[in-house]
This record gives sequence, structure tokens and C-alpha cells, in this order.
Amino acid sequence: MKISVVGMGIMGSAMAGKLIAAGHEVTVTNRSPEKAGPLLASGAKWADTPAEAAASADVAITMVTDPAAVEAVSLGAAGILEGLGTHAVHAEMSTVSPSSAAAIAARYGERGARFVQAPVLGSRAQIEQGTLLVLAGGDASDIALCSEAWSAFAKRVWTLGEPEQASAFKLGCNMLIAQMILALGQSITFVRKHGIPAAEFLDVIDESALASPMFRSKGGALLKGNFTPNFVVRNLLKDVGLAADAAHEKGCTLPFNALAAELLTLAVTQGYGDEDYSAVVKTMARQAEVDIA
Amino acid sequence: MKISVVGMGIMGSAMAGKLIAAGHEVTVTNRSPEKAGPLLASGAKWADTPAEAAASADVAITMVTDPAAVEAVSLGAAGILEGLGTHAVHAEMSTVSPSSAAAIAARYGERGARFVQAPVLGSRAQIEQGTLLVLAGGDASDIALCSEAWSAFAKRVWTLGEPEQASAFKLGCNMLIAQMILALGQSITFVRKHGIPAAEFLDVIDESALASPMFRSKGGALLKGNFTPNFVVRNLLKDVGLAADAAHEKGCTLPFNALAAELLTLAVTQGYGDEDYSAVVKTMARQAEVDIA
Amino acid sequence: MKISVVGMGIMGSAMAGKLIAAGHEVTVTNRSPEKAGPLLASGAKWADTPAEAAASADVAITMVTDPAAVEAVSLGAAGILEGLGTHAVHAEMSTVSPSSAAAIAARYGERGARFVQAPVLGSRAQIEQGTLLVLAGGDASDIALCSEAWSAFAKRVWTLGEPEQASAFKLGCNMLIAQMILALGQSITFVRKHGIPAAEFLDVIDESALASPMFRSKGGALLKGNFTPNFVVRNLLKDVGLAADAAHEKGCTLPFNALAAELLTLAVTQGYGDEDYSAVVKTMARQAEVDIA
Amino acid sequence: MKISVVGMGIMGSAMAGKLIAAGHEVTVTNRSPEKAGPLLASGAKWADTPAEAAASADVAITMVTDPAAVEAVSLGAAGILEGLGTHAVHAEMSTVSPSSAAAIAARYGERGARFVQAPVLGSRAQIEQGTLLVLAGGDASDIALCSEAWSAFAKRVWTLGEPEQASAFKLGCNMLIAQMILALGQSITFVRKHGIPAAEFLDVIDESALASPMFRSKGGALLKGNFTPNFVVRNLLKDVGLAADAAHEKGCTLPFNALAAELLTLAVTQGYGDEDYSAVVKTMARQAEVDIA
Repeated sequence: MKISVVGMGIMGSAMAGKLIAAGHEVTVTNRSPEKAGPLLASGAKWADTPAEAAASADVAITMVTDPAAVEAVSLGAAGILEGLGTHAVHAEMSTVSPSSAAAIAARYGERGARFVQAPVLGSRAQIEQGTLLVLAGGDASDIALCSEAWSAFAKRVWTLGEPEQASAFKLGCNMLIAQMILALGQSITFVRKHGIPAAEFLDVIDESALASPMFRSKGGALLKGNFTPNFVVRNLLKDVGLAADAAHEKGCTLPFNALAAELLTLAVTQGYGDEDYSAVVKTMARQAEVDIA
Repeated sequence: MKISVVGMGIMGSAMAGKLIAAGHEVTVTNRSPEKAGPLLASGAKWADTPAEAAASADVAITMVTDPAAVEAVSLGAAGILEGLGTHAVHAEMSTVSPSSAAAIAARYGERGARFVQAPVLGSRAQIEQGTLLVLAGGDASDIALCSEAWSAFAKRVWTLGEPEQASAFKLGCNMLIAQMILALGQSITFVRKHGIPAAEFLDVIDESALASPMFRSKGGALLKGNFTPNFVVRNLLKDVGLAADAAHEKGCTLPFNALAAELLTLAVTQGYGDEDYSAVVKTMARQAEVDIA
Repeated sequence: MKISVVGMGIMGSAMAGKLIAAGHEVTVTNRSPEKAGPLLASGAKWADTPAEAAASADVAITMVTDPAAVEAVSLGAAGILEGLGTHAVHAEMSTVSPSSAAAIAARYGERGARFVQAPVLGSRAQIEQGTLLVLAGGDASDIALCSEAWSAFAKRVWTLGEPEQASAFKLGCNMLIAQMILALGQSITFVRKHGIPAAEFLDVIDESALASPMFRSKGGALLKGNFTPNFVVRNLLKDVGLAADAAHEKGCTLPFNALAAELLTLAVTQGYGDEDYSAVVKTMARQAEVDIA
Repeated sequence: MKISVVGMGIMGSAMAGKLIAAGHEVTVTNRSPEKAGPLLASGAKWADTPAEAAASADVAITMVTDPAAVEAVSLGAAGILEGLGTHAVHAEMSTVSPSSAAAIAARYGERGARFVQAPVLGSRAQIEQGTLLVLAGGDASDIALCSEAWSAFAKRVWTLGEPEQASAFKLGCNMLIAQMILALGQSITFVRKHGIPAAEFLDVIDESALASPMFRSKGGALLKGNFTPNFVVRNLLKDVGLAADAAHEKGCTLPFNALAAELLTLAVTQGYGDEDYSAVVKTMARQAEVDIA
């Protein structure tokens, strides 16, 4: 297939690499061209704009950081919508607010263009292992076309209804990530204040019904003081904020999420914004005047 | 071994049953004697008081509901301390506050009596399958003696330091249970407000790094509207309150736990106090005016 | 003086009325012209656009509801900036975010136009009594010019630094309003659960060091079940949200404000969005299953 | 009248002084006798125990710090109940939980002894100025007798129903105190982060409908960095905790109060426990990394 990837961040680059490896004809573009170097060396073509990238594609993937960027590469001047052929589908895979996904989908609909909102669970490691999870909202036939491309890096694709529902689904997951790290951090801080080694607590949790792969990996990193980012505090805070806005629009109150936003904000204030989101546990430990491990 | 079990609630009865099955000589007692019927039929002996039960025991287990009951059966008139032989150990397996565990341990210490605080992770099902986890605080040799008894129903025993540390450890686990169910409930409520079926959300979570046996079992029960209790809202609320008190004594602030106590209180107000703790999700869904499944 | 007023809501209309009564030459405009009827009958002139209204003014006042409207009437096509003379000042009196005030001020600065951000404390009653408080950010000489106009309805003007500081000041006040009504509602709910009449509680508070005009007026309204709006739940929620965003930009955490936003959201969900903000106490009483009075 | 005062803390001593000055025959007692020195020099008599103090009294006042002390001096060995004559009334003026007030009242009732729960609003300054407010629960005739004594230092007495209702009323007031100082601290922190002087903010608030004597006095103290205690953080935290327990017993959820307890706990952790409760604002400012004034 002909597949273009817009956005050469960690995620977009990894996707493009796997698509090339799977034998697809891949075109890439990015605001700062130098990030595309390794992929061009591996055989990708360069496009100057999202519109140009979309023009040659069966599936045009966008994977960018913030909602403003999503809107710009989709609807802006020389954006995907300008170039996308009628046979092709735009697969928007970033984390955006449901209302923003709905707004973009509506604009595509007016033009008869095909749009799928498809945020993902997992990060670079999952892309490389081919175990990414895709949460896709849009027409089933459009999703089916995209799935041929996604099979290069995804383990499973869920078809979830409308584009905004896929976004809401993803935000529901990220809210859960925030709550789980804060829950773990709170309990660790509590037992540490009672002189219990964190390693022992993590060990017991890992044998209990509360065990999860996330507690295992983040717990291990906490013990080592390793906050090399997979997903930074700042981005989790952004998603928690998008969730709050979406909830309020729906008349749904999220008090735990609201406190999570405050604590993540404090973590950013303390200088942890660009560390892995598990660094928020350092903020909790500082408040309790205790060491994590 | 000669083992006595004080407290014929769900947990104590199940332990006694497994101890008999393992060939131990078991003595039981309880405030209301009728609950001991089935065990007496299986070969257990009856004692009129905790002191009498302790007198004949190598290991005297207590498993009662609230801290006042723990104090009464341990230190009260005709309590364990009055009857316990110098070769024997009192294994207190209820969930109590660290300060209460420390106070009892101190009183035993003054009399040269042997005391282990050993709360557990798991409920009746785990006892019956022999997969209970035991968090033991006290002297290593005392814990070793108890472990011979516990092997009838426990998969693993951790030796964790002082009695109060074992209590703190257990409260840290129960705080985590509370946070996890509330986190799950919050995300489910959020995605439900966006029209997403809860089953789909639970399905995705179960394939993600956030998957845990608890989410799987409680999620399944939520979908069926099954709130048959394993561990009731009221008791989780009690433990969350014990954790708050213990944290404040140590100068440790727990804002998420504090909100958890409020929401669990609201669940009790709404009549869910004696349902499984997962019923707190009903309270969240009610606030958002949405159905859970 | 020649004064124009853009925005014929409750506040803007009342200001224009007082300015006419004080002998000024007043021009008005509004998105929906029919709201200006009574003022035109009292001698105000009509302008078709903000630019036209500004063209003839010494002081051009804007008083509109939301940040998007502020931006449109200030910077949009046929907005104030297009028409404002070099001798004249734009007095923006709505509640906006500090960053939005700063952005507008910067645009005016580039063009050499004079801009004052001047949100107010008080509502229609205070305008009519001439007791409004004005929180003004901008150049002292510009504020001095505006003050001549404001003297028609204001008791006092504070000169507070930059435009964004005036906005932050106002948000700080509205955060406090939100906290105070929630604090009062929480205590009333608590004493009501103990069977104490709310009137008695309000009476005692009013004799204590906690007494405030706000508790007196809102307390009286609560007793009568009178939620006729002075300032609606929905707008207080909007301001609390602006405060949260501004705080997070500055790395400042506001957990109580975050909970306030959640409870105000719940009040909107329950249908109180267009009632006076004190209606949030109904939400608290509902949760506690108790009557307010 | 013959009046005894048990508890020679700041409040009890000041009450006894005013009672002597008003011409009453005053007997005092205290755990540590040296605190009674100045009063004995002014003409008070000494009693060795609460029972002895009560024996000669028409009204026996108790004013002690914590619920355990209240129970001890009331119901303990040589407590008030042992000595109180049938014509006399015990006026318990400390801040206790409603359930504790009810329990003591019930024990007195069984013995035909007269008991009034009468917590107060105000501190030493109000006693000395004769402007204390008394919240009295019990029989009207008993309260009438006590009021003759209280007139030496109180401005007004409310008759509020049962003893537990007087306690609940007082806790409702102290919850409000906690919320108001935290609300003020939150807004001050917010405006300080925007570079606004706290003095200016306090000045505006004092002219607005939010003005209260408490904001004026505590605001002034904050500006001076004066945290000389009228009412210490630790005691406010205790009362907030009593309120939480009482609320939960009644099935009433208090999320703002719960967060208040957490923040007050953090203030104690940071070493402010024995400073005036307004010192909690220092904790908020520290989190935001800003100076208060």
C-alpha cells in the first residue's frame, strides 16, 4: 500500500519504520525535516506538506502532539484534507478531545472525505514489537482499509463507533493511567512513612489481585530512580485536562481526575514535566518528606 | 499442631476448616456460638473464651472485624493474653491500625508473651484454594512457628518487621484497592457518558498494561450488576479511615484517600454499605446520571 | 465625555444608563440590537459595529460574556481596535483570562492604541447604587481618563499594574466567591444533618468573626429558596475554570478550586446552571439527602 | 453564685478571672496546679479534683482540650459526676464530637444529674471583652442557670436543642473557619503568582461583599508574618477530624473538609502545628513557591 506518515516524533517515526519494513511504499513529512533523515535513508519518500503527503496515499496517518497541531495538519493550509484522494482515508492517531475529533470529522464529511480517529495504547516499544492497540472510530470500511496498514505494528484494532468516541475511549484510558500511578505513589509513600521498603511493597502487590504490567514496570523504575520518559508528565497532564473538559461538557464530574491534574501540575512546577509520568511519585514523596525506595 | 481460631466470621471459619483438613488439632470460639456448628461437626473443639482457646494452643489465631474486638479478644478479660502459654504464639490476622498493633505488641512484650500481627491479602476463595498471602510482623522465630499453621491455607508469607509495619502494609494495600476501584469507576463513567459500552472498555483495559486480575473480576461483576460481597463497602471505608488516621499521625497527607473516604461514605448513605466494594461505582454512575453497563 | 458601551447585557445596559444620567454622550451597540431599545429611548445613540462605536468615543467600554466575544469585539473585523482614536482608551471590563488580557494588550501596544483591562466587583445593584468596585490594569494616565467615566457608577478604582494582573485579581476574587459559598453550603448541610435549623446557624455566623455581607444575603436567599440570579452557576464555573488554567500556566496548584469546579459542574448537570450561584448548595444538600432550610 | 472552673488553659483561666471580677465565689482545679496560681492570688479557691470542685458549685464549668480529657473530668474517678449536687449543673464548654456529648449526657441522665454542652465562639480576647458567643444544648432551665454565670464573659447565649446538637453546631462553625482560611490562602497564593501584592488583594476584599472580620484580622497578621496563636493549626485539624467523623456517622460527605484535613496535616508536618491556624497559608505559598506578602 501507499502510506504516508505526518509527524516524525517518537511514535510517528517508529510507525513509519515498521511500515517500510512491512514492504509498504512510505512517504513522510514533518515540521522540522531533519527528524526524517533515518527514514529517508531507509527508503521513505519526502513530501513538503501534509497535502502533498496525502495526495499519493491510500492511508494518510497523522501522529502529532497537541490538538492545535492536529487541526493544522488536517484542516489548515496544505493540510491533509486538501490533498486526500477520494479512495484514501486519513487515519488521525493522536490524542485529541472528543469535540475536536467530532469537528474535524464533520469538516471531512462535508467534503466527502474519509476520516478515522484512531488513538493508540502503547508506545515505541509496542510499535516495535508489533503489539500496539488501536482504538478506531469511524466507518467500518474505512477502518478496515487502515487496518491493513496498522497490521505492520498493531496487535489488535477495536472498532468503537464515531471518531469522538474513539477519542473519549483513549482519554478514559489515560485518566486511568494517571489514577493508577497516583494510587501506587500514595500507597508507597504511606508504607515508606512506616519504614517499609518500597521493593517489598511492590513485590507483594505483584503477587496479589492488584498486579498489573504497569505497576511492575513503573515500580521497577521507581526503585531505580529511573525516570527516562516513555510518556512525560506534561503530556499526561494535558490528557487529564482534555478529559476534564470533555467530562464537563457532558455534565460529568471527575473529582479524582481534578486532583490528579493538580498534583501533576505540582510535579511540573517542581521540574519533572519532561520526565516519565511516574516522576509524579517524587512529588508525593517530597510532600511526605520520605525517600521513595 | 494445636491451633485455636478466635472469630468464626467468613475468614476465620474458612481458616479453621482448612486447618482441620490439614490434620491439625483445632479449637474454636466465637461471640455467637452457633456459627461454630459446622466446624464442631468436622471435629473442632469448642472453647468458652479466647483465654481457654489459647491455653491449649501452639498457635492462637484471631480474625475479627474491628479494632475494638481485636483489643477485647487480646487484652480483655478472658482474652488470649490471659491463657497463652509461653511456648505459644498469638497470630492476630485482622486489619487494625498500626498504633493499635503496636500497643497490643507492647502489652504482650511486658508479659513476655509472643505476638505476631499478620493481616492477609485475599478472601474466602483464596483460603479455600490455599493461595492467601500473609503479611507478618514480629519476631522471625514466632513467624516461623505460625507459618507451619498458615501453610494450610497460605501461598506465601512475608516477614515485614514490627507488628505495626505489617498493619501499615495491609492498609497500604487496601488504600490501593480503594483507589483502583474508584479509578476504574471514574473511567467507566466517563466513557459511558460518551456512549461507549463498559464491556468494550473493560475488554481493552484487559489487553493493556493496565490489566489486573482485580479489574477483570470486578469489571465482570459490574457488567452483570452483581454486587455479592467479597469485601463490603463499609469495611473498605473503615480501612481507608484507619489509613487516614495512621497517615496523619506520621505527618503524611493522602488527598486521594481522603476523597475515597468521602465517596465510600456517599455509597453507604445510598444504601450500598453491605454490598461488595465495587458497588461504589454505582454511586459514581448515579452522579453522572448514566448506567454502568 | 463621549463614551461608548459595547455589550447590552445586564451589566453593560446598567452602566450605559448611569452614564447617560451623569450627562455623558453615550453610544451603544450590541449583537442583538433590540436589547438597546430602552437606552436609545433615553438618549443613547446607536452604532452598527464596535469600530463605529469606538470612533466617536473618548472611552470605549466593552462588557461581554465570554473570552471569545471579548476577542471578537476588540480585535475582530470592525472591532474596537479598528475604530479607536489615538486620544481615546478602550476599557475592557469583562472577566477574561490573564493570558487573553495580555494578548489583547500586546496587539493594542503594537498599534499604539490605549487599552485598560478593568474587571469589576459587584453586579447590577452596585452599578445602580454607584458602588461598583473597579480593578484596573494598564497605564495610570489611561486609567485616570477611564475613571472620569467610571465615576458615574463606581465607588472606587484600584490601579493594579498590567492588564493581565487586573484579570488575575478578578479571578482571585471569583475563586474566593466559589469557595465561600461552598464552605457555607458544606457547613449548613452538616448542621442540617444534625437537625439544626439553617436559620439558626446563619444567625450565629452573622454575629461571629466569620460574618460577611455575602453570607448574609446568600444565606437569606437560601432560607427562602430564592435562586433568582445575580451571577449564575454557569458563569461562576467558567471563571473557576479560567482560574485553574491561569494557575496551571504559572505552576500553581489549586486543589480546592479544582473540587469547586467539579461540584459546580454537578450543579449544572442537575439543572441549576442558570440559577444564582448559591444554588450549588442545593447540590450539596441533595448529596446529603437533607433539606437546606 | 458558686461557680467552679475545671481546666486552667487560656480559655478556662480567662473565664475564671471574669467570674471572680463579677463577684462570684470561684473554685478552680487543673491537672497541673501551678497554672492556677494567679487566680488563687485573685481570690479563687483550690479543689484537688473535679468532684471536689463540683461539690460546692451551682455551676461547674469544664474547659479542657481533647475529648479524652472531657470524658475523664466528667465521668472518670473523682470526676464532676461524682461530686455534682442535684441542684447544680455541669456546663461542658469544650469542643467535642456530637456522639461524645450525647454519651456523656446519657450517663448524666441515668443518674438524674444536669448536663449542658455549651461550646463557644471566640477566644481569650472575647472573654476579656465580655463578647463570647455560647452555643448551648440541654434543658432550657439548666441553660438559664448557666447563663447567669456566663453573663460574666458572654455577649449572647443560643439555646440549640440537645447537647449533641450544640457540639455539631460548633463543629459546623470550625469547619467554616478552616474553609475560609484555606479559601483566602488559595486566592492570595494565586494573585501572588501573578505578582500582585497581598495587601492590595486584602484591601479590595475588605471593601467587597466578601469582607469579614476574620479576613481582616488574619489578613493583617499574614502581611506581618505574625502567627502568634489564637487558635493553633493542630486544634483546628482536630476539630476538622471530629467533623469528618460526625459527618460520616450521619452519612454526610464533606469533600472540602476532607481536603482541609490533608492540608492542615501537611502544615503540621512542616512544623506549623503550634502556630495560629492562619499559618496553613504558609504551606500553600510553599507549594506554589511564592512569598505570602
